[in-house]
Amino acid sequence: MPHGTLYLIPVTLGDDHFAGVLPVQVVDVARRLDTFVVENEKSARRFLGSIKTIKPVRELVLLTLNEHTAEKDIPALLEPLLSGKDVGVMSEAGCPGIADPGAKLVALAHRKGIQVKPLVGPSSILLALIASGLDGQRFSFLGYLPAEKSARILKLKEIENRSAKAGETQIFIETPYRNQHLLEDLVVHCHDQTRLCVASNLTLENELIQSRSVAEWRKSTLPNLHKQPTVFLLLAS
Amino acid sequence: MPHGTLYLIPVTLGDDHFAGVLPVQVVDVARRLDTFVVENEKSARRFLGSIKTIKPVRELVLLTLNEHTAEKDIPALLEPLLSGKDVGVMSEAGCPGIADPGAKLVALAHRKGIQVKPLVGPSSILLALIASGLDGQRFSFLGYLPAEKSARILKLKEIENRSAKAGETQIFIETPYRNQHLLEDLVVHCHDQTRLCVASNLTLENELIQSRSVAEWRKSTLPNLHKQPTVFLLLAS
Repeated sequence: MPHGTLYLIPVTLGDDHFAGVLPVQVVDVARRLDTFVVENEKSARRFLGSIKTIKPVRELVLLTLNEHTAEKDIPALLEPLLSGKDVGVMSEAGCPGIADPGAKLVALAHRKGIQVKPLVGPSSILLALIASGLDGQRFSFLGYLPAEKSARILKLKEIENRSAKAGETQIFIETPYRNQHLLEDLVVHCHDQTRLCVASNLTLENELIQSRSVAEWRKSTLPNLHKQPTVFLLLAS
Repeated sequence: MPHGTLYLIPVTLGDDHFAGVLPVQVVDVARRLDTFVVENEKSARRFLGSIKTIKPVRELVLLTLNEHTAEKDIPALLEPLLSGKDVGVMSEAGCPGIADPGAKLVALAHRKGIQVKPLVGPSSILLALIASGLDGQRFSFLGYLPAEKSARILKLKEIENRSAKAGETQIFIETPYRNQHLLEDLVVHCHDQTRLCVASNLTLENELIQSRSVAEWRKSTLPNLHKQPTVFLLLAS
């Protein structure tokens, strides 16, 4: 029997209005599937309810893959594909496989000869990059920064150096309740000429994108980023 | 008069079938605009024709911003926005502001206090990353590699070292008629355990995504990437 296809299904970045961020054909693929590997079952059920899947949501099979999943349990998630069923992978928000454990499943699918089909949808990292006006010719995504303040400040210096040396835009994120501390540290500790962009609540009604030099940031009233999903971007010269 | 909004409008990656890669609301924004800043006028007219703009395509204002545009000519491109008109920016393919000069316009818009609105659409870099199964927790996009063979091989060694040291997926591209040489160099010169993905013609009918270790690549028949738009990804350990 031929294998099923592993569809990488992006989801909205925080509300139910999928028509602004998902192509019709992507929604159609998600609607017809009945088996999913999801990072968060609750948010996945809510998303699948909003797009009106062909089968009722309660009849769908949702397998979980998150940071608590043991390596040894990942192969079992591919079993439906090996027996010919198409499966969708979904992150809690945005595109699966970025800053979530979905990539492990995709890697294993390639090893088993299963076709992988990436679908178009919202990525806060990518939207932040294009909206920042910082250099998109070369960029790095660094994931989360250290939680502890002095380690975080050291890391910011390292990021700024790397950006200046390589001429690369540096992109990073923080646990949302620490966003304000990160912004304050950036404004205090980075160089005047370094360009800094914050992009919050992308694609949502309260979207906020501010991009200016650190010298200008110091003269501005800082936005309130507390608990607002935010992408930070920096380009040093 | 309030400023217009600068919309960052993604376009298809190479054909006219936009329903698979663009959300309905993104197409609706592009349909109602009458002024655009475009990387390539011919491909922009073709795209705007395919989505059926409200005004006939011949009546639309298309201003060009590409690698030949002088820095001093960029401010004039913002004039329609300063007089209250909404403007769309479009790259030749995919998202504006990545590996194209659109970022310069966006940077200037921020400086002038013009609202920048990024819209969701296809990015070959992002689709390749999620489809590769390589680590999406940390990644770098490096742009184009050196054209000359010995410089390219040196650069590949440097990329592989950087990937191993930082634990980062490295993403790069090549002028399409040199893709096959790049693939051959990668397969010959990288380490056995390095994972290498090639992703060609993403979102198109002849999409090809292959992700395996260099040792496995050496045992495989190489795909023909000549003149096929391809993203290369590598993760060394």
